[in-house]
Amino acid sequence: MTETLEFMRELAAAAAEQTLPRFRRGSAIENKFHAGFDPVTEADREAERAIRALLEARFPDDGVLGEEFGLSNAGSGRRWVIDPIDGTRAFISGLPLWGTLVGLTVEGRAVAGMMSQPFTGELYLADETGAFLEHGRKRQALTTSEVTELAEATLCTTTPALFGGAKRQAYDRLEGQMRLARYGTDCYAYAMLASGHVDLVVECSLQSYDIVALVPLIEQAGGVITTFGGGRPEEGGDIIAAANAELHEKARAVLAGP
Amino acid sequence: MTETLEFMRELAAAAAEQTLPRFRRGSAIENKFHAGFDPVTEADREAERAIRALLEARFPDDGVLGEEFGLSNAGSGRRWVIDPIDGTRAFISGLPLWGTLVGLTVEGRAVAGMMSQPFTGELYLADETGAFLEHGRKRQALTTSEVTELAEATLCTTTPALFGGAKRQAYDRLEGQMRLARYGTDCYAYAMLASGHVDLVVECSLQSYDIVALVPLIEQAGGVITTFGGGRPEEGGDIIAAANAELHEKARAVLAGP
Repeated sequence: MTETLEFMRELAAAAAEQTLPRFRRGSAIENKFHAGFDPVTEADREAERAIRALLEARFPDDGVLGEEFGLSNAGSGRRWVIDPIDGTRAFISGLPLWGTLVGLTVEGRAVAGMMSQPFTGELYLADETGAFLEHGRKRQALTTSEVTELAEATLCTTTPALFGGAKRQAYDRLEGQMRLARYGTDCYAYAMLASGHVDLVVECSLQSYDIVALVPLIEQAGGVITTFGGGRPEEGGDIIAAANAELHEKARAVLAGP
Repeated sequence: MTETLEFMRELAAAAAEQTLPRFRRGSAIENKFHAGFDPVTEADREAERAIRALLEARFPDDGVLGEEFGLSNAGSGRRWVIDPIDGTRAFISGLPLWGTLVGLTVEGRAVAGMMSQPFTGELYLADETGAFLEHGRKRQALTTSEVTELAEATLCTTTPALFGGAKRQAYDRLEGQMRLARYGTDCYAYAMLASGHVDLVVECSLQSYDIVALVPLIEQAGGVITTFGGGRPEEGGDIIAAANAELHEKARAVLAGP
């Protein structure tokens, strides 16, 4: 276990103290009696604050980019990228498919990352030593699937409705060739891809903080993650992540046109 | 805790012994080395066998209807209805949104039911004494939400693609009026509805074993569950479940036509 991964485990625990007590607490009744009470917004902000506090204490010179509180130490070559709750729509619906994301880039390249799902107790971690799932007392190395045929592959996306115009046609063309599609999976989809349970994740208009943490997880597990155009994914945009290079190439070809 | 609910807890534990070891074991690599190995089919069959064995020992004269092994003791007024794994597509994708369903009907009316999700450790139970969630050592009574406006409500469905023709238009009309829609949630959607986290579930072409176990959960938590036509839901078909009668009526009106 590297120091980076040990530290990420601390970040996950600190964030979970803020998110978990607010998960499944957004009932209509509570909202009625506490005007303006918005558990997911509170959880988002408090989790990012908790993560930032640990980062500032440990790496005061590093850059930090978070969904809630923007960018600090912009000039640093090291940058921590935080999405305190990825999958807020799952969060407010009680579904355990959201996660806390923290990634580390060095000179713009993602080198380490975590996805923490505290309700199920799953912690997905990656750095240069590999990609891992910690669940309870168990720890396992992760490997993507060997599926190379679209017709045998499972695809995840947030929802086809996010793809507009020609992109929607391209997405529908791809989904039509897959064995199975699952929606609404957010960051959990990338964890399942790294674990070999799904084979492809396709999403559009992502922010940097949606994806940086997940890049090392996919790459260290043996997968390939790029923009639709084949470029590095750290800046977000339209992203395609696949279990292996062959499947990635086939899916990109379908997205590119008939 | 009634005897029926105690017994359902036994059923859930016996099914989990068959499902959980096979969850997330369906990797391409394993399938390659064990031709014909199909973890979800195995889990489905073995879980139903385990449940049937307990039922036959305890209630030898009761009817049993299961997804895998059909109907026995058809003449009994009491009938146990089993879906050993509801949400097989979630199961094979590694997503913890599947569940083991067991319901009890008396003279065709659902009077008790359970939904067990062993990966998260959640057990949803209902009989004439109420609807409950057991999670770890905690047990809580469940109540549906008080949301009565479609524009404030969250809707779940398996996927809009299952609705064909005029039904798809009706579904799209309804989804267009909601605050939020979530897909791919299967039986977990009904658990979230009973718990007050989502407000509406709409699905088509369900089998009896997809729904019987969930009817007491919704009704005992304060919700309303019927066919699109307003009839009893025990036989399956097109089903609409809502947090309360007002929301149910509004959603049915939108589905019925402009």
